[in-house]
Amino acid sequence: MAQLRLAMAQVDPTVGDLPGNAALVREHVTRAAQAGAHLVAFPEMVLTAYPVEDLALRASFVEASRRALTQLAADLAADGHGDLPVVVGYLDRAPEPPDAPDAPQGGRALPQNCAAVLHGGAVVGRYAKHHLPNYGVFDEYRIFAPGDSLTIVRVRGVDVAIAICEDLWQEGGPVSQTRAAGAELLLVINGSPYEREKDDTRLALVQRRAAEAQCTLAYLNMVGGQDELVFDGDSMVVGRDGTVLARGPQFVEDLVVVDLELAGSSVDVGGLPEDIVHVTVSQEPLPPYAAQQPPMYPRLDPLEEVWRAVGLGLRDYVRKNGFRKVLLGVSGGIDSTVVATMAADVLGGENVIGISNPSKYSSAGSKDDALALADNLGLDYRVVPIQPMVAPFLEALGVDGVAEENLQARVRGVIWMAISNSEGPLVLTNSNKSEVSVGYSTIYGDSVGGFAPIKDVPKTLVWELAKWRNRYAVSRGERPPIPEASITKAPSAELRPDQTDQDSLPPYDVLDAILAGYVGVAHGRDTLIEAGFEPVVVDQVIQLVDRAEWKRRQFAPGPKISPLAFGKDRRLPITSHWREQQEQHR
Amino acid sequence: MAQLRLAMAQVDPTVGDLPGNAALVREHVTRAAQAGAHLVAFPEMVLTAYPVEDLALRASFVEASRRALTQLAADLAADGHGDLPVVVGYLDRAPEPPDAPDAPQGGRALPQNCAAVLHGGAVVGRYAKHHLPNYGVFDEYRIFAPGDSLTIVRVRGVDVAIAICEDLWQEGGPVSQTRAAGAELLLVINGSPYEREKDDTRLALVQRRAAEAQCTLAYLNMVGGQDELVFDGDSMVVGRDGTVLARGPQFVEDLVVVDLELAGSSVDVGGLPEDIVHVTVSQEPLPPYAAQQPPMYPRLDPLEEVWRAVGLGLRDYVRKNGFRKVLLGVSGGIDSTVVATMAADVLGGENVIGISNPSKYSSAGSKDDALALADNLGLDYRVVPIQPMVAPFLEALGVDGVAEENLQARVRGVIWMAISNSEGPLVLTNSNKSEVSVGYSTIYGDSVGGFAPIKDVPKTLVWELAKWRNRYAVSRGERPPIPEASITKAPSAELRPDQTDQDSLPPYDVLDAILAGYVGVAHGRDTLIEAGFEPVVVDQVIQLVDRAEWKRRQFAPGPKISPLAFGKDRRLPITSHWREQQEQHR
Repeated sequence: MAQLRLAMAQVDPTVGDLPGNAALVREHVTRAAQAGAHLVAFPEMVLTAYPVEDLALRASFVEASRRALTQLAADLAADGHGDLPVVVGYLDRAPEPPDAPDAPQGGRALPQNCAAVLHGGAVVGRYAKHHLPNYGVFDEYRIFAPGDSLTIVRVRGVDVAIAICEDLWQEGGPVSQTRAAGAELLLVINGSPYEREKDDTRLALVQRRAAEAQCTLAYLNMVGGQDELVFDGDSMVVGRDGTVLARGPQFVEDLVVVDLELAGSSVDVGGLPEDIVHVTVSQEPLPPYAAQQPPMYPRLDPLEEVWRAVGLGLRDYVRKNGFRKVLLGVSGGIDSTVVATMAADVLGGENVIGISNPSKYSSAGSKDDALALADNLGLDYRVVPIQPMVAPFLEALGVDGVAEENLQARVRGVIWMAISNSEGPLVLTNSNKSEVSVGYSTIYGDSVGGFAPIKDVPKTLVWELAKWRNRYAVSRGERPPIPEASITKAPSAELRPDQTDQDSLPPYDVLDAILAGYVGVAHGRDTLIEAGFEPVVVDQVIQLVDRAEWKRRQFAPGPKISPLAFGKDRRLPITSHWREQQEQHR
Repeated sequence: MAQLRLAMAQVDPTVGDLPGNAALVREHVTRAAQAGAHLVAFPEMVLTAYPVEDLALRASFVEASRRALTQLAADLAADGHGDLPVVVGYLDRAPEPPDAPDAPQGGRALPQNCAAVLHGGAVVGRYAKHHLPNYGVFDEYRIFAPGDSLTIVRVRGVDVAIAICEDLWQEGGPVSQTRAAGAELLLVINGSPYEREKDDTRLALVQRRAAEAQCTLAYLNMVGGQDELVFDGDSMVVGRDGTVLARGPQFVEDLVVVDLELAGSSVDVGGLPEDIVHVTVSQEPLPPYAAQQPPMYPRLDPLEEVWRAVGLGLRDYVRKNGFRKVLLGVSGGIDSTVVATMAADVLGGENVIGISNPSKYSSAGSKDDALALADNLGLDYRVVPIQPMVAPFLEALGVDGVAEENLQARVRGVIWMAISNSEGPLVLTNSNKSEVSVGYSTIYGDSVGGFAPIKDVPKTLVWELAKWRNRYAVSRGERPPIPEASITKAPSAELRPDQTDQDSLPPYDVLDAILAGYVGVAHGRDTLIEAGFEPVVVDQVIQLVDRAEWKRRQFAPGPKISPLAFGKDRRLPITSHWREQQEQHR
């Protein structure tokens, strides 16, 4: 038996910030050393942060990552931690760039998504990700060359195999190699984005792979928001029998320190196949020591999980893009109310500028609800009626109907952007996933904004989140922030007299159920009708979704919380005559 | 020796329009039959059009493509062309869907990009693309499963191997198989998007591959615009010695009919390896006949080529999305002048609504130039001064400086969208590639619009195009459409007194040269400085480009004409702290 204290740093790096991310690593290595760790690990590509997208195709960026890694190794030694092995993800050149001019990547020499083992001031080991995800939000065949050898590092007599993210999701490859080599610990560093209920999928996968690899499996995930993605942490260690030995927190940075009891160097170093590289950092097992209690964070409530995911995505978008404040329209409706509350939760109400832009169609109730919300949250609240700006447009152009409705929404957008240009806050747009799906928004109007917090949250879930947030406040002895009327009243854009959303859309529970099928899992018309939805409603929804693609293309990014979000996750042509009902109608 | 009359239909299908595309095929097969063809070919995925992006992941769409193919085979026979073999691209299921739940595509059974041979009312042969491009604008690992066998079809005693697009760009695979099997004709069907000077690359490649395959090579390309892409036709036939035997026109539909003289059935059908499928459609060689003169279209002038590419992209976006008219702001500046002229060229001046929105900063010259242009082109020209709408915003918000400049641009956007909502035209945005690169535009202001014709045309090229268009008019005895002053005056947004673009930007020739390096080929700061650019200017440009990513994400699509356009072709994070000069500054 051998012991090892593993420190998994689930940190929140920033894409491209090589000096900042290196400093983050150094800070956590110091903390890990203070905690008595024998091995420290960081997430996938922590040095560059993740995903870097086409930055990987810039030679200057690849070289900067390589230099930053070498510097980091030296700096860690200078910090006095040269003896402590550290596993860090980074971007590296491929050892032998393909030289075929007609290679699939268009002749470019692709770099690799790598993990390095730093020790004694130097890079002593290197592993390149084998399995490159190229589905959903991932484009890794586009930007990386796959690795083909496994790296095992011996630390205090314990053989630790290293793998990266997708390597764990695939049969064979590093998992099989780990088993064949007889390593005792499989350390997987990840940049795995949050999705609702994905945590349970991950746990089940980690348990299955631990059994397949026949060893303890440590799963370390990044934390933080990056454009459309939210990384949720939730790092864990699972024994070969599937027992959860430790679990880190969700959505916050943490150093997860776990004492492991392992068999001790069972790898036959002389007998390894050519595609396994073995590096010995330290041969001598540790003398027995008293293990600490491992962290075992409970899972968050599913609604709290979504609230925190969106909040983290929002906070990091604001912070990492150099903003301090946000600005949004507050109408008293449930969408703007929930977005304002989320923003106040992560930025503080005083950093949230809430603009009420009443029109002649705005109800007194809506104005009251907006004011009550502003009061509850301590918003920087301002009222700018739009009638004086709307009137001269109507006079000059003589438009009415939908054009007049949209005009009001666009005048609001102009006001928000003028204040943003003048004072600097990031403008948020409040559209939810149901609206974004069916195009129920005015482009360049209420869709104005640089970030769309609830873009992937369907309307029915927006209501659930609002109710959860108020219950949460009550459970903590606080005043519920969200005015009850904002939750209970019929949703309306208030762009013409007595308008409600249900004038143009099916009830939201029906709409969201159809969207879950049509958008969420690409079900066709026939499948939806077999599932019991009215054909006429299915056809209406499908048509609305298909026709709104051009609007979505110009929509702000927002955090992905579902298995299939709009944006990188769903790439459809704008120009398309495909209609599910096409064959019926020809 | 054997003869064969090949008809290559370089047609313009519409994505998703299965009935319409099938009708297009039938129409061209009839024309080919009338022309006495013995084999007819259509472009890559002609039945679904191309690229279908994630529509390929919808099972209902894949099945509809399969049904449409079967129906097409029957319809062609019913049309009396059952004896004429026809090669059509379409979308098909993979023969054996992968069943691994952890497959790279996230467990989805991916379909295939296929070519079918239709004959006698049935599908008699099938080939699936081997090499899947996954770089630039292409995401084919995401949506297709690769094929692994070659299909050779014998027509009138001639053995014709079939391949699809990227198969030709790769060493090995179908090209080697064609040579090994001894086929006499390699027919490659393509959906290959236009790029400046790509035609010469393609010709050289076709010549090289004909030599490698040791046979005649027929290269058939699609025509038309699809969102960001323009397919330029330019189909060709090249002999095994590299001689160009025929060449089709660029940017227009055509049936390219070529009489080939080939060796005649040199394939040893019994001795083929397992990964080559041979289908005999007709064994008996044709009796000798008098060959026709093949078409040999000359190459267009490089500037005319760009003009036509943008025009086709614009025309097809308008037409395929159900618009009849477009609307754009006309300021008298070169960008709006060129876009209006392009639009009038492809849609007719009467279908182009040109709006002049003078502000208090607009010069008399600009107003005159806009009016002269409108007159030259026969635009539906309207003047809507913006001062009455700008004033109440300024009064209510008290903003000035850049906020006031942007406000004027946004008031214009509101006016255009109100007219669009009221009358239905597609709004065009006039930003050129230089502006889109450095973010020199007002989001929700002059960037308002559903399509951006010159998004991939740098400012210096906009001027060249304008001059070319006037020369072209003169060469045809027509009045030059573009007012000389629009070409010669200093460019200005006219949003404040005496403003010119060069107050904030380097001269456009310098800017465009730096952008060609930084954006076009991902050169780093050091490389640019080594190339002789001023470090301070390089740093300014890089910073502007990097900081404008969020704006580009909300920008309309526009036709790609360069090797690296914005959009699908260049995928960078919005949130990024990477700066080329980072290491100098830390």
